[in-house]
Amino acid sequence: MINKLIANIERTQAPIVVGLDPMLKFIPKQLTERAFNDYGETLEGAAEAIWQYNKELVDHIYDLIPAVKPQIAMYEQFGIPGLIIYKRTIDYCREKGLVVIGDIKRGDIGSTSEAYAVGHLGKVKVGSNSFYGFNEDFSTLAPYMGSDSITPFIKVCREEKKGLFILVKTSNPSSGEFQDRLIEGRPLYQWVAQKVVEWGADFMGDSYSYVGAVVGATYPEMGKALRELMPKSFILVPGYGAQGGKGEDLVHFFNKDGLGAIVNSSRGIIAAHQQEKYAHMGEANFADAARQAVVDMREDIQTALRGK
Amino acid sequence: MINKLIANIERTQAPIVVGLDPMLKFIPKQLTERAFNDYGETLEGAAEAIWQYNKELVDHIYDLIPAVKPQIAMYEQFGIPGLIIYKRTIDYCREKGLVVIGDIKRGDIGSTSEAYAVGHLGKVKVGSNSFYGFNEDFSTLAPYMGSDSITPFIKVCREEKKGLFILVKTSNPSSGEFQDRLIEGRPLYQWVAQKVVEWGADFMGDSYSYVGAVVGATYPEMGKALRELMPKSFILVPGYGAQGGKGEDLVHFFNKDGLGAIVNSSRGIIAAHQQEKYAHMGEANFADAARQAVVDMREDIQTALRGK
Repeated sequence: MINKLIANIERTQAPIVVGLDPMLKFIPKQLTERAFNDYGETLEGAAEAIWQYNKELVDHIYDLIPAVKPQIAMYEQFGIPGLIIYKRTIDYCREKGLVVIGDIKRGDIGSTSEAYAVGHLGKVKVGSNSFYGFNEDFSTLAPYMGSDSITPFIKVCREEKKGLFILVKTSNPSSGEFQDRLIEGRPLYQWVAQKVVEWGADFMGDSYSYVGAVVGATYPEMGKALRELMPKSFILVPGYGAQGGKGEDLVHFFNKDGLGAIVNSSRGIIAAHQQEKYAHMGEANFADAARQAVVDMREDIQTALRGK
Repeated sequence: MINKLIANIERTQAPIVVGLDPMLKFIPKQLTERAFNDYGETLEGAAEAIWQYNKELVDHIYDLIPAVKPQIAMYEQFGIPGLIIYKRTIDYCREKGLVVIGDIKRGDIGSTSEAYAVGHLGKVKVGSNSFYGFNEDFSTLAPYMGSDSITPFIKVCREEKKGLFILVKTSNPSSGEFQDRLIEGRPLYQWVAQKVVEWGADFMGDSYSYVGAVVGATYPEMGKALRELMPKSFILVPGYGAQGGKGEDLVHFFNKDGLGAIVNSSRGIIAAHQQEKYAHMGEANFADAARQAVVDMREDIQTALRGK
């Protein structure tokens, strides 16, 4: 799957992942009203609005991008109806040839970690059958509990040829509270990065490991050091756009081969129609606005990489 | 809800939480076969078997215990049908007067953390209505991303009078990889503990904070130090039984008032019928075996506390 991710990036010339993190306030009224007419102002109604929104977005941008990253929290908040749409979104995006990074940030141990791994990436056994639960291509994971939380996922990933992105240095303002604290002179996030390298060392695709890292665009200098520390790890970079990261900040996250990073934008793409820059396109054309925002983001990143 | 948890503990004289972490291999054949007859060897069949198992367990033990802790991974692995049963289990346990600790270990930031918080503890707005997604009483949370991941939960907890348990020192063998690393002479988990105290300081129940901590029974000496560091934080203690923690190890986790800790046992209770000690009761009487295991665990802890 890391090879497919890289092939998709090379084909689209866009190291971009679109965060499918829908909020009801992003969705044009006409879509929401239609869903509420059919299902009422219920969890099912909200889920239907989100599904129609996602589908139209994906239909308009899938040929330009290598991957999507649905944030499960945005679906989980609507309980079971929301999670049904999370699964439907994954299936639809896979059908369209997109790599799906499930942004789940799970982290637990032993049999519990195994359960998450089979549920999100692998197949669970029921009697003589086995079934995919959510069937993402990659999952994001939290590292606080150590190797016990990662190795069960790696086992499933080997069977399924799927991959992981481990939180190393996150994009949020308070990420430093623990991640930046110095241990023997080096910040915690670098120790986590070192573990990411270890976990991924003997689980390689053609040029990069199946075990990648999450490093926020909002900390470009740290990204530079982490790029060197993890030369074979793909870096998933959140924080571009809405959180303040710019194209010029991103160059440090890439290797000299022009690969090694994939930059996430969520509301910057999927809610582009609510930005001043794209508002003239009209709310009803939200998916066209998203497409234009992808084109602009690709240009921003390519320009920055050319100037590297 | 922290007051209800304490009232339940005082009523039952049992600082025990039963981990409802069902695995198909725990479930007696007769239950599984009946479910597979009705639904096939499918995700729905597995979910039905788990539901019948949970229901019979809860019916047999609810009067002896203050709380249950369903581990969402064990349901999530069965996809949507599994999560439907997670929700049904929560609702059923709440109807029985039990406090429900959702063991979800979520951790994300900003609007994503808000989404998890409203989905698991609060209500999500849909038009002019609002709905509970999962409606747990407490959630467990992972701290790696810092305050940004905790404060949105605290906001929802204040509205709902619900609580949190933050991972501080986990029970697993590799928990030390990051948690034990020294920062200015003190291990990371103590810095997290200090934050737990800060987060909970102005969100108090009658005697304890709504913000508690998770500290593994397998590290009693660390538990002792953490008990002193977090005098007003309830400690959720996993690792008793199957993971090796013993009654005598637990005394350090309690305050002089006999409160301040609640000890989890999962397979030690719910799969008691598979232990040599209870096997004579027969697989069909798994819920009676679970009841006896609760009685024995209560006695083990009370004996240890009397000898403190």
